[in-house]
Amino acid sequence: MLSAARDTGIDLGGYLAECRALAIAEIRRLVPFGDACGPILYDLMLDYPLRDAKGLRPTLCIATCRALGGGLEAVLPSAAILELYHNAFLIHDDVEDGSEQRRDGPTLHREHGVPIAVNVGDGMLALALGPLLDNTRVVGLGRALRIMQTIARMARETAEGQAIELDWIRRARWDLSDDDYHGMVIKKTGWYSFIAPVVIGSIVAGTDAAQLHAMTEMARELAVAFQIRDDVLNLRAASSRYGKEVNGDLWEGKRTLILLHAMRCLDASDRVDAEAILAKLRPTPHDVELETLVGELEWAGELSAPGRARVEALLHRAPRKSAADIEQLTAWIGQHGSIDHANAICRDHANRARIALDGVPGLASSVHTDVLHSLIDFTIDREH
Amino acid sequence: MLSAARDTGIDLGGYLAECRALAIAEIRRLVPFGDACGPILYDLMLDYPLRDAKGLRPTLCIATCRALGGGLEAVLPSAAILELYHNAFLIHDDVEDGSEQRRDGPTLHREHGVPIAVNVGDGMLALALGPLLDNTRVVGLGRALRIMQTIARMARETAEGQAIELDWIRRARWDLSDDDYHGMVIKKTGWYSFIAPVVIGSIVAGTDAAQLHAMTEMARELAVAFQIRDDVLNLRAASSRYGKEVNGDLWEGKRTLILLHAMRCLDASDRVDAEAILAKLRPTPHDVELETLVGELEWAGELSAPGRARVEALLHRAPRKSAADIEQLTAWIGQHGSIDHANAICRDHANRARIALDGVPGLASSVHTDVLHSLIDFTIDREH
Repeated sequence: MLSAARDTGIDLGGYLAECRALAIAEIRRLVPFGDACGPILYDLMLDYPLRDAKGLRPTLCIATCRALGGGLEAVLPSAAILELYHNAFLIHDDVEDGSEQRRDGPTLHREHGVPIAVNVGDGMLALALGPLLDNTRVVGLGRALRIMQTIARMARETAEGQAIELDWIRRARWDLSDDDYHGMVIKKTGWYSFIAPVVIGSIVAGTDAAQLHAMTEMARELAVAFQIRDDVLNLRAASSRYGKEVNGDLWEGKRTLILLHAMRCLDASDRVDAEAILAKLRPTPHDVELETLVGELEWAGELSAPGRARVEALLHRAPRKSAADIEQLTAWIGQHGSIDHANAICRDHANRARIALDGVPGLASSVHTDVLHSLIDFTIDREH
Repeated sequence: MLSAARDTGIDLGGYLAECRALAIAEIRRLVPFGDACGPILYDLMLDYPLRDAKGLRPTLCIATCRALGGGLEAVLPSAAILELYHNAFLIHDDVEDGSEQRRDGPTLHREHGVPIAVNVGDGMLALALGPLLDNTRVVGLGRALRIMQTIARMARETAEGQAIELDWIRRARWDLSDDDYHGMVIKKTGWYSFIAPVVIGSIVAGTDAAQLHAMTEMARELAVAFQIRDDVLNLRAASSRYGKEVNGDLWEGKRTLILLHAMRCLDASDRVDAEAILAKLRPTPHDVELETLVGELEWAGELSAPGRARVEALLHRAPRKSAADIEQLTAWIGQHGSIDHANAICRDHANRARIALDGVPGLASSVHTDVLHSLIDFTIDREH
């Protein structure tokens, strides 16, 4: 999986693992244990961070800082803060998107309910404020304040991106361009996954304006490439290392570059059918039970046709997607080469990220710079 | 409703209204409008703040600051930040508690769904970081950092309080003392509603340690008195001005001082019955529909007894509270004088708040000091 990285001679996997371990050790230091408020706050804060993950955000932050001449100790608390925010956002995102799986396990709200999941996310956002303030002692007042400003911007951008997507869903909007997708992705995941880690790594290193500009450009391009690759991986059944539900995006009705392309390619009649499928909600475990129940009652002669119609009218006013619906969407995506379209755009963005990175003024050659290059290659080659 | 306040000659209602208007004007300045991310982020941030509310938190913050000699302009951004946090917490709390009504309207998640509500709350928490940082220009760096530390502590205490309550619910715990209730309340609502407003008002005024200590003590006592009064008002059918669902706490199975007292007074057999009632979930609109449907199918001869049993087994594995259950709880509360018990403890805390306020060293007599006294009276006399 790290073939592209190996070609450059860099052990990207090892670097990622090390950065992730450092960030998690820092998070463990922040999260109290054996506390008085029961096991459903602080213990659960470590649930997502300790599941198998790439450690992309702390790695980006640390590699950027060190490539620009900054020190590891100075950047470590910031890398941990970013990982903490990332995991808090994941918990709330999973609630908002109705996601079932995260990092090879059930999502936090599936396992503990929405109330506990929302509160754990809030607790993590609260906990992150402590090291943000303590950062004044680590990187000095001026840099600590700029980092806080970046975090404030990041949190706003993330909420805006989420709002844009929720608004598209609410209004059943499919008349969206690749640019619309691009703008949403930059806000929803690009800011907290790429832009903030790179900007904060640069601030800790004491970068100048020209370096910061080029680095930010690299991060923006990488963000879009990464998300498109994520969308492609979501559709691939063989992605056992992917960690999320295969076809989860189709069940959730996510506006991916792939699906938007397929929608544009459909003729008028298929387009109507596709929008009808996508307007359906994803079935909940409750729905599946009810389907089974109604079937059983009917089979046992308990339910006449009008009775069934009455049940369906009440229970399925909001119709649900079926496996056949998902197969139909997959077929359309295949027919119109929408995955190839997405892959091509993904490569374009990765190329632009490479150009931006090459254009960072005065960026010395180092293992950390090599890691940034490898991360760009990894983004488009990765299988998980 | 402001009779106690009028007796002291202070127009508490006018003071509260003015502080609330000032905080809302400040929040309006912070929340962008006509933005590009649709109407479900920034517009909805103003939803709860613009509903009829007392403005207690900005008033406490402003009155404390001014009573200690601080200026209005210096404290105003902090008062608005507290109001913003308060409303963000309310949105997430309503989701977590499954509350139906807030300030005379449906809760945000009832109206717009859980995903949008969770995101609006997150957006407000993000937005509040901006003025917290800008505060360095308003109150100077040292005080701005202390305010941020207070907010960080407040956000953690709130999440801890919520976790304690959610853990009690999850583990069906009713073996709780008044002290357990006290500790939970201080964290869940006391910190963000009373302690942080008073501490931050004091910091802006440049208070000394002795004043801060006495003021904080006043806030802690007032917090408990206020929550107990809230619990009492929740049980009173005539509270048309209350804004929340009457008996909502009983439907939600909240651990109030009143219910905990009643539980302690019940004999063993009634206690078992009470715990069984409280272990039931509150019915959702979906449940009510299903009940109706099953009744209709049965009436039309569509469903035999075994069929009905099968439906109930599948749909009501988690049994739901009924109106008769709530009446039974209310009767037990009445029989054991649990409201009188709560009222007596409420008055004790209010008295201790008065003593703490009288003990603030060097607190000059002023309209703002009078307002703090009136707020204590209001807390125990209020009808909404």
